[in-house]
Amino acid sequence: MSLHGVSGHPEPPNPTDSSSPSTPKMKISPKLNRWSMGRALRSGVKLDRPIHRIYNTHCRQASEPKQKEDDKKTSTIDVETTAGKSIYLISDGTGWTAEHSVNAALGQFEDFSVNRGSSVNTHLFSWVEDEDKLAEIIKQAAKEEAMCFYTLANPSMAKSAKQACDQWGVLSVDILGPIIEGIASHLGVSPSGLTRGAPGRVKTLNDAYFKRIEAIEFTIKQDDGTLPENLSKADIVLVGVSRTGKTPLSTYIAQKGYKVANVPFVMGVEPPRTLFEVEPRKVFALKIQLVVLQAIRRTRVKTLGVDTEAENNYSGIDLVRKELDFASRIYAENPGWAVIDVTNKAIEETAAVIMRLYHDDGRDSSTSVPRISKRY
Amino acid sequence: MSLHGVSGHPEPPNPTDSSSPSTPKMKISPKLNRWSMGRALRSGVKLDRPIHRIYNTHCRQASEPKQKEDDKKTSTIDVETTAGKSIYLISDGTGWTAEHSVNAALGQFEDFSVNRGSSVNTHLFSWVEDEDKLAEIIKQAAKEEAMCFYTLANPSMAKSAKQACDQWGVLSVDILGPIIEGIASHLGVSPSGLTRGAPGRVKTLNDAYFKRIEAIEFTIKQDDGTLPENLSKADIVLVGVSRTGKTPLSTYIAQKGYKVANVPFVMGVEPPRTLFEVEPRKVFALKIQLVVLQAIRRTRVKTLGVDTEAENNYSGIDLVRKELDFASRIYAENPGWAVIDVTNKAIEETAAVIMRLYHDDGRDSSTSVPRISKRY
Repeated sequence: MSLHGVSGHPEPPNPTDSSSPSTPKMKISPKLNRWSMGRALRSGVKLDRPIHRIYNTHCRQASEPKQKEDDKKTSTIDVETTAGKSIYLISDGTGWTAEHSVNAALGQFEDFSVNRGSSVNTHLFSWVEDEDKLAEIIKQAAKEEAMCFYTLANPSMAKSAKQACDQWGVLSVDILGPIIEGIASHLGVSPSGLTRGAPGRVKTLNDAYFKRIEAIEFTIKQDDGTLPENLSKADIVLVGVSRTGKTPLSTYIAQKGYKVANVPFVMGVEPPRTLFEVEPRKVFALKIQLVVLQAIRRTRVKTLGVDTEAENNYSGIDLVRKELDFASRIYAENPGWAVIDVTNKAIEETAAVIMRLYHDDGRDSSTSVPRISKRY
Repeated sequence: MSLHGVSGHPEPPNPTDSSSPSTPKMKISPKLNRWSMGRALRSGVKLDRPIHRIYNTHCRQASEPKQKEDDKKTSTIDVETTAGKSIYLISDGTGWTAEHSVNAALGQFEDFSVNRGSSVNTHLFSWVEDEDKLAEIIKQAAKEEAMCFYTLANPSMAKSAKQACDQWGVLSVDILGPIIEGIASHLGVSPSGLTRGAPGRVKTLNDAYFKRIEAIEFTIKQDDGTLPENLSKADIVLVGVSRTGKTPLSTYIAQKGYKVANVPFVMGVEPPRTLFEVEPRKVFALKIQLVVLQAIRRTRVKTLGVDTEAENNYSGIDLVRKELDFASRIYAENPGWAVIDVTNKAIEETAAVIMRLYHDDGRDSSTSVPRISKRY
């Protein structure tokens, strides 16, 4: 969903907008060398800056009462402080590393939109493998007053990105470069410089690949207590009442190559016998605060649109409490199971807690802090 | 699986090993202030460095023929070059950002283990939220001659990590710091400095959370062509013959909040009518090279342990070819479907290609390069 070009809303006349007929249209050919664009910009070709962006932001809010042309023009400063801030993510591969890292960092600015009434918009550009495209994107970033993060395996592309950003006054951060340099120095070897899709890169159909596929397929087949006879084959077994997040957690962990089974605990229904034959250190019991679970179940009920009686049986406070008590009793009878509180936790967080406990098997006496180790 | 403390193998005598009775044992109390440890190290307390690590590496290779004590001592240099290199990942949150970024960077060193007969071992330490634990881990990194990557939201922890690594001669890279600084400068606001589990952090049970859960649950229910009547509700529909990776791809994309359905194409079986009623731009048709598919199916057959006739029907070259031709014909009849080659591609790569096409709806005319935009 791009800020730009959301059509169907007439654009107000905009003297600095390059697409307006009143100013000469700037040619943005993908073939145009980035240096000539840089020169053009520095020599005074006007960039369509804030106002362009502000109008676009207005266009997105279709429900907002229509302002008069004059109001818009006079309220430029107000509007500017409430407009969205753009962050460009540029990658010559999938772009997931840039997205993941910037997402994590944005967690440090959660109050931004609340306190400023503003928003942050990320724009991910993946598979950017030639200099012309790179230059075009960074030019556009300058126009939108965006900042750029990039993950470019090809060192010459990374250098170009840095230079272009510097020349056009775009704040930029190289995410991958310092990590690659660190590893190169540590291993004493040079990086390949090959992008993800490059022919020279090692192919991915190795044992780890097949193991991961198998884990995902196993996990899907095991979902929601199906095939209890296979519980012994799972690496990890999750138990918990309905809406504690067993399914999303299972698939998340499965992506990391673990076979996960999950068993729902339902009030008054005895869990399958095979669950108690599983090695206790593999079983993770999910618990959650009563009121939070009730709220989640109410949301669920709304989505499903079920009748009132069914709703009460599912999200009525007394019944939710009884079901949680029922689960707690079974947890208490199995002290070898780790009990994890999932209240207000994101899937990634609970997964990290489980992974840490799963790998903390007490064999590592070198530090008192558990570690998850992998070999490459 | 840590290199250290793999018990059950008698350790050879080691003059520089601190656990050996011949040298005074170094006290590693979690309470011991990291600065006093630093001072102790600098003032000449010997660290149990390479030899310790090499012996442990030997211990792990149980199948390796036993060397005599003397051989080991004289072959120190050889052994050292073939020993594993350790990378520590330290986080005060889940650690997934560190793992993801370093994993991506390691893709630049794929030849390392092949050409050097060596391996890289990563060790992830998550939820490291106090200075004592941090100091203990970095001290251990110095012992193992590891390098450290860290993602520490708390600025005072990040500073301590840097100082401790510098003092103990551990190469270190701050992954999150430069990204947070960049965003802070761009938005003109200070980061919260709160770790993921901190009470002040915004809770995660928002609309996006529920949307994601719903997407994952939808995707699992739709897997493998079940419920064709629901295809119209999917954001994305994947089609392809068996073993083109539809299931892992579906769950991977679902984690990003998209409802994915997949429909297997089986030789001679007409796909469900509802598939052809789905908006073509939502349908992604997977293709794969014949020989690669055959190899994957052979691996699959081995795992399942099915009989020879079934094997021939599934992985025999003629039948695989016919099935691929059957799928290709249907693809050709539906020119609105994007055809994606998954040959030798990792799940993440194919997902990135699909995401890019899915979001490239031609509405964004600001650049010729498609973008995936998100609002925070």
